[in-house]
Amino acid sequence: MFKTRYPIPGEPPGVLKPRPDAAEHAPVITLIEYDRAHLEEHTITNRDELVSCLDNPRITWINIDGLGDIDVLKTLGSQFNLHPLALEDVLATGQRPKLEQYDGYLFIIAQMLYLNEQKQMCGEQVSMFLGKNFLITLQEEGDFDVFEPVRARIRAANGAIRKQGADYLAYALLDSIVDHYYPVLESIGVSIDQIEDELVDAPKASPVGDLHRYKKTLTQIRRFIWPVRDLINAMLHEETGLVTKGTKVYLRDCYDHTVQLMDLVETYRDVLSGLMELYLSSVGIRTNEIMKVLTVISSIFIPLTFIVGVYGMNFAREVDGKKLPWNMPELYQPWGYVTVMLLMLALAVLQLVYFKRRRWL
Amino acid sequence: MFKTRYPIPGEPPGVLKPRPDAAEHAPVITLIEYDRAHLEEHTITNRDELVSCLDNPRITWINIDGLGDIDVLKTLGSQFNLHPLALEDVLATGQRPKLEQYDGYLFIIAQMLYLNEQKQMCGEQVSMFLGKNFLITLQEEGDFDVFEPVRARIRAANGAIRKQGADYLAYALLDSIVDHYYPVLESIGVSIDQIEDELVDAPKASPVGDLHRYKKTLTQIRRFIWPVRDLINAMLHEETGLVTKGTKVYLRDCYDHTVQLMDLVETYRDVLSGLMELYLSSVGIRTNEIMKVLTVISSIFIPLTFIVGVYGMNFAREVDGKKLPWNMPELYQPWGYVTVMLLMLALAVLQLVYFKRRRWL
Amino acid sequence: MFKTRYPIPGEPPGVLKPRPDAAEHAPVITLIEYDRAHLEEHTITNRDELVSCLDNPRITWINIDGLGDIDVLKTLGSQFNLHPLALEDVLATGQRPKLEQYDGYLFIIAQMLYLNEQKQMCGEQVSMFLGKNFLITLQEEGDFDVFEPVRARIRAANGAIRKQGADYLAYALLDSIVDHYYPVLESIGVSIDQIEDELVDAPKASPVGDLHRYKKTLTQIRRFIWPVRDLINAMLHEETGLVTKGTKVYLRDCYDHTVQLMDLVETYRDVLSGLMELYLSSVGIRTNEIMKVLTVISSIFIPLTFIVGVYGMNFAREVDGKKLPWNMPELYQPWGYVTVMLLMLALAVLQLVYFKRRRWL
Amino acid sequence: MFKTRYPIPGEPPGVLKPRPDAAEHAPVITLIEYDRAHLEEHTITNRDELVSCLDNPRITWINIDGLGDIDVLKTLGSQFNLHPLALEDVLATGQRPKLEQYDGYLFIIAQMLYLNEQKQMCGEQVSMFLGKNFLITLQEEGDFDVFEPVRARIRAANGAIRKQGADYLAYALLDSIVDHYYPVLESIGVSIDQIEDELVDAPKASPVGDLHRYKKTLTQIRRFIWPVRDLINAMLHEETGLVTKGTKVYLRDCYDHTVQLMDLVETYRDVLSGLMELYLSSVGIRTNEIMKVLTVISSIFIPLTFIVGVYGMNFAREVDGKKLPWNMPELYQPWGYVTVMLLMLALAVLQLVYFKRRRWL
Amino acid sequence: MFKTRYPIPGEPPGVLKPRPDAAEHAPVITLIEYDRAHLEEHTITNRDELVSCLDNPRITWINIDGLGDIDVLKTLGSQFNLHPLALEDVLATGQRPKLEQYDGYLFIIAQMLYLNEQKQMCGEQVSMFLGKNFLITLQEEGDFDVFEPVRARIRAANGAIRKQGADYLAYALLDSIVDHYYPVLESIGVSIDQIEDELVDAPKASPVGDLHRYKKTLTQIRRFIWPVRDLINAMLHEETGLVTKGTKVYLRDCYDHTVQLMDLVETYRDVLSGLMELYLSSVGIRTNEIMKVLTVISSIFIPLTFIVGVYGMNFAREVDGKKLPWNMPELYQPWGYVTVMLLMLALAVLQLVYFKRRRWL
Repeated sequence: MFKTRYPIPGEPPGVLKPRPDAAEHAPVITLIEYDRAHLEEHTITNRDELVSCLDNPRITWINIDGLGDIDVLKTLGSQFNLHPLALEDVLATGQRPKLEQYDGYLFIIAQMLYLNEQKQMCGEQVSMFLGKNFLITLQEEGDFDVFEPVRARIRAANGAIRKQGADYLAYALLDSIVDHYYPVLESIGVSIDQIEDELVDAPKASPVGDLHRYKKTLTQIRRFIWPVRDLINAMLHEETGLVTKGTKVYLRDCYDHTVQLMDLVETYRDVLSGLMELYLSSVGIRTNEIMKVLTVISSIFIPLTFIVGVYGMNFAREVDGKKLPWNMPELYQPWGYVTVMLLMLALAVLQLVYFKRRRWL
Repeated sequence: MFKTRYPIPGEPPGVLKPRPDAAEHAPVITLIEYDRAHLEEHTITNRDELVSCLDNPRITWINIDGLGDIDVLKTLGSQFNLHPLALEDVLATGQRPKLEQYDGYLFIIAQMLYLNEQKQMCGEQVSMFLGKNFLITLQEEGDFDVFEPVRARIRAANGAIRKQGADYLAYALLDSIVDHYYPVLESIGVSIDQIEDELVDAPKASPVGDLHRYKKTLTQIRRFIWPVRDLINAMLHEETGLVTKGTKVYLRDCYDHTVQLMDLVETYRDVLSGLMELYLSSVGIRTNEIMKVLTVISSIFIPLTFIVGVYGMNFAREVDGKKLPWNMPELYQPWGYVTVMLLMLALAVLQLVYFKRRRWL
Repeated sequence: MFKTRYPIPGEPPGVLKPRPDAAEHAPVITLIEYDRAHLEEHTITNRDELVSCLDNPRITWINIDGLGDIDVLKTLGSQFNLHPLALEDVLATGQRPKLEQYDGYLFIIAQMLYLNEQKQMCGEQVSMFLGKNFLITLQEEGDFDVFEPVRARIRAANGAIRKQGADYLAYALLDSIVDHYYPVLESIGVSIDQIEDELVDAPKASPVGDLHRYKKTLTQIRRFIWPVRDLINAMLHEETGLVTKGTKVYLRDCYDHTVQLMDLVETYRDVLSGLMELYLSSVGIRTNEIMKVLTVISSIFIPLTFIVGVYGMNFAREVDGKKLPWNMPELYQPWGYVTVMLLMLALAVLQLVYFKRRRWL
Repeated sequence: MFKTRYPIPGEPPGVLKPRPDAAEHAPVITLIEYDRAHLEEHTITNRDELVSCLDNPRITWINIDGLGDIDVLKTLGSQFNLHPLALEDVLATGQRPKLEQYDGYLFIIAQMLYLNEQKQMCGEQVSMFLGKNFLITLQEEGDFDVFEPVRARIRAANGAIRKQGADYLAYALLDSIVDHYYPVLESIGVSIDQIEDELVDAPKASPVGDLHRYKKTLTQIRRFIWPVRDLINAMLHEETGLVTKGTKVYLRDCYDHTVQLMDLVETYRDVLSGLMELYLSSVGIRTNEIMKVLTVISSIFIPLTFIVGVYGMNFAREVDGKKLPWNMPELYQPWGYVTVMLLMLALAVLQLVYFKRRRWL
Repeated sequence: MFKTRYPIPGEPPGVLKPRPDAAEHAPVITLIEYDRAHLEEHTITNRDELVSCLDNPRITWINIDGLGDIDVLKTLGSQFNLHPLALEDVLATGQRPKLEQYDGYLFIIAQMLYLNEQKQMCGEQVSMFLGKNFLITLQEEGDFDVFEPVRARIRAANGAIRKQGADYLAYALLDSIVDHYYPVLESIGVSIDQIEDELVDAPKASPVGDLHRYKKTLTQIRRFIWPVRDLINAMLHEETGLVTKGTKVYLRDCYDHTVQLMDLVETYRDVLSGLMELYLSSVGIRTNEIMKVLTVISSIFIPLTFIVGVYGMNFAREVDGKKLPWNMPELYQPWGYVTVMLLMLALAVLQLVYFKRRRWL
């Protein structure tokens, strides 16, 4: 789901290296400039157009899909005074979400998580640079993103978002990222409910593998939500003035969502542990029941088989005309067979009564 | 028990959307206005009557049962200056209890939990807006609520509640919500005691499913009480002046109740874990006992069956008139049968002694 | 051991309600007034004698055994200005130990735990109101209390306690309550040691139930000691001046005892968990050994029984005078029987060697 | 290893009571007085010689081996103004290590732990009173102590210890106490390594008891080291001036040692838990293997035994001269025996193939 | 992997003792002096050349491979005013990473961890003394170190490192140490993935031992990374001025890496625990399946074997010419054999149906 790119030991810090799969991820750069009254949206093909908008009174949102061209990053870096370490983190995908304060801007890393059209879980790293009047967002791929509803709200002339600053835009994007975790978790929840129903019903196939896989997924999701909570908390308490008090009220709402998501993840993890325990204990209990059946049947029939074996022995009644009266006299009684059969029946009944008393039946 | 409504990803914040089941939950609005001397109580049918009582010297308590009409919420919002995010939270039921400070009022979300008349557990979200001289409470349904005793105390002319402000009313309602958790937990406690008694007696049916279900319920209850504790703690330490020092003494008492409830939940969870362990260990011990019985009976009779099988073989004593003296001479001894029977008896007794020594009997 | 009385939902706070078993617990009120030189001790039968001693220069200790008469509490409340919430807590027994500061006095709840004369564990709630020069203690029953040694120390003319204030008296009583936990824990420790010795020796009956019961008791004891520690810590750091610096040195000693008790409880809980694990693992190991015996005996004799069964078959050697030479020719060899017996012996020996090698014997 | 002496409930605090084994532990008092230039060392037999050295410019170290004579403690108490509660703690051995500040001195309790000459673990409580220019140490027994190397360093004329104050002496003794935990832990580590090697090799006897015992020992050691860490930390941050800045640099080193010891204890505890898990899982896996052998052999031979039993039945071919052709015709076929044998062989081979496929062989 | 050297109890602190393996680890001292413009690099063979460079305006990096010669340490100590306790820690390898502030320099201990050329994990302690313009690093062995890439960056004339101070050099080395943990953890991750794949496929050999070993390794790695995080955090917040604000931005990046490493270690530990659980549960489930096969086969054939045993009994039909009609009349019926066979078939089919219903087949 998420592929983490680890640093190469000994490399100097802040050096941008092209990624091995650079060719497949050529950047698509879109720029949206807006204020209350105006809205301008276009795609940038030549990276020289990325002139700094530090002094532009309007809000500028530059979105870059695809990290394949490091020159774009370098241009951004020089135009917006971005720190090389931050740019390096943009490339090193799969990172822990975090907020870092630099002079003049905040650097935010978050992890998008969404269900694609085939209802498969997909993840992607989103990096943001939030300045006074600009927001730069960088994504790994351009296939799909969770920002489309926000773009629609900007395009709507009367959207609240048009009256607010870049910090509110950053909030709206973060909120969209966070809210897209819900459907993912709900789809997991549905699967867990199915497993639970099957367990109560009759556990055909062992659900252990599935439970294990979902637990692993939830662990990873937790690893991404937990620091997002800290990140938003840090934004709530930052004091650079880049985030206004009005936006912080909204961020508090977003913070609540992360807490609720954490709750949800913990609940699902608890349920998974409970189901695992339930299933394993049911296996133990069933083994116990199988053993009872084996023991009851064996305990009844093994002694009986011994008895009939006794009367199948061939001890001779006569040797060379001499009678051997002590060899198996029972075999020569008129009621011998019936007596033995009744004795065996009595023995079986006694055993059944004993097993009944011990609650093995 | 509790159905959580998750945010729709990408939606703009603070937009009130009608709930899918709106039609079934038409709001019933009751208004109680009181001070030491006066008491006025009536139902509001036209939402225009919801004129702001910000300047009313008496305490106004507006209670709304049913969240089906979002226009009511919007009217409330504009009359009392309520923040759209707070109103959105009112609709998004199943939330984590929380306290939020807004200008001029506190916003409180709590979860009611009570046993209905069929002794089934029911839950409902309660939202409160606590202002200087007003309290607005919003509930999901009108069937039942835990506020009736508080209303009775208000109606009683000499009740302490009439001499106090809106903050004391909010305390009284919170206290009633918290105290209604006790009977719920006690009913769970009674069920757990029953399971424990059965376990000590003789575990007929597997109690694993029940234990698992109660554990899940307790986990959910804990998830609602824990933040209530924090909420009350936040009220104890808030500094807006909306909560007076006198009321805080009472809130401290309510806080103690939440701590006691947490204690109770933890105790029950411990007991459940202990019972689970107890039951599973007893299954293991019983499997061990069943194995002993099987092993003892098999170990005694399988060798004996072999012996009688030996003497059931048909090796010929004579072939074509020629004697074969080495084929099963035992069968032709006068005391052969008796000797074999005694030998088998001795073998069985020896085995019994051995098993007795190993404490398997 | 401890019966907790839960609040009735919706009741107004601070209203004293007679307990259902009030008749059996008529209060016995004793009053001790002392300073360095004087000592006066008498029983109060008429509650009007409970005149406030707020201005009495001597130390007044009012002890009330039995909470059956709520009028006594009300009189106390009005005479000593006690808060109704505190008096309500006095009646609601089984509470979490706690310290609450009110104007002019500290309110302390603790739980006595002692072995009665039949060496059974008994518990009782003790409430204390500590004022400048008075101490009021309230107990559930009058049968037994842990305060007798303190009374003896007061009666002794030269006891240190006579030279100190009411805070030292409160310390002395708390110290006695805390120290009475030791014999209780030691009696549990002795029982645990016995179980451990039996486990090492030979586990006759399953100790699981006992281990479970002791664990539950320890959990409850922990729930009472833990907050006592916090309570004493709060007394050490309170700043009302009701507790003098000199007494705090002694309270620090009492605090150490609670820490030591917690240590003891944790140690016992660890030992109990260890014994549980030890026992269950020994059950698993014994099951394994039983299985080995069953498997070895079955694996040796079942194939042998098959072989002798083969030679017990009745395939005919002659039909209608016609020889059938291929039907069981072994039976007609002179050494057939001996050969088969030796072969079976060899098979058994081979299996024994195999099992020996796999360490199953 | 450590015997804890619990307080007697209700006893007045700070009263020194002779210990039951007082006679066996008559105190041996040695006094060392030193500064850079001088060194005086002698044994005190008469307790009147214990004159206070509060004003002595040299460092005085009084070491008392054996707590049998409480008069010695009382004399010390009056000469050095020691608090009765501290003296009581000296007698109540087996206590939690702690640091207490009193006027003019620090009171330290620590627990020595060492391997005696028979490599057995021994423990002993050490109490210290550290004043401006004196140090009093009290030990339970005189047989062995961990202070000998420090005495040697004092006797060496050029030792650093001679140039330092009483606080450095206290550090040196604490450091010696802490460092003596290392060999004890190493001896446990060696034993654990042995158990691990045996487990990998072949688990002859069940190591569960040993693992359990070591875990218990480690728990107790942890209970003594953990508070020593806090104690040293408290010394590092105390502000009475009794511990100089120079000595604190050394105490920081000692603090590091306690952290390292805690690490070691935790590591060993983790390893013990891992070994327990490893052993128990290996028991489960072996039971599984034994079951496979039993099942394979039983599944193959029980049906075969049934088949041969069929042909051992005695259904008559002729009754009163009348042929019964449908009774067991197989027995009268020329190739009957061979066919049955081959069929059984085929059945056995099929089963073997099946078991092979299911990886049970 | 790491061999810890424990202190010798009772030794005076700060005394340097030659290590037992001193001869094998003769120190190799290299000195690099650089600033923006100049670079000088040479090996020191005579320890008198280690003249203090406290007043040298250039950055001096002294690297010592091999701790065999304590005179080198003593010379260093006197030339750079290093504290004897710090020098002692340099020799006592296998320590917990830590940062200590001394006058004029910071003392850092870290643990290198790398894969050598045979892909084996190797560990080595690195000690650093960071002064205003010098850095001294000391390693246990000279075979391999993780500093070579940093040396290369210094040698490159235009490297950023040449423009920075000694603190940046220390950062670069720490960063290299931290980053070398990644390949080690990745190699463990690859092994864990292999085990997981095998588990899903078919668990040939028991993976319990491997899982246990990896868990132990991860525990040890965690014990080294955790304090490195604290160490870097301490550097971020130190206030001596030895670490500049510019370098702290880079250290924050290094701090992020330690957090990510901790995440990775925790993830792997979780996965290991999950795999252990998965494997053990699969063993339990397989035992259950094996038991089912045994029980089904035994339950079907043991009763049948009993039946055929009955008709193998030799009860006589005639004694001395007298008919015994009640002895086994079934044997003499024309359709006796066929009836018995069909009855047995019916019994077997019934049992199969029963087992099918109970889902044992």
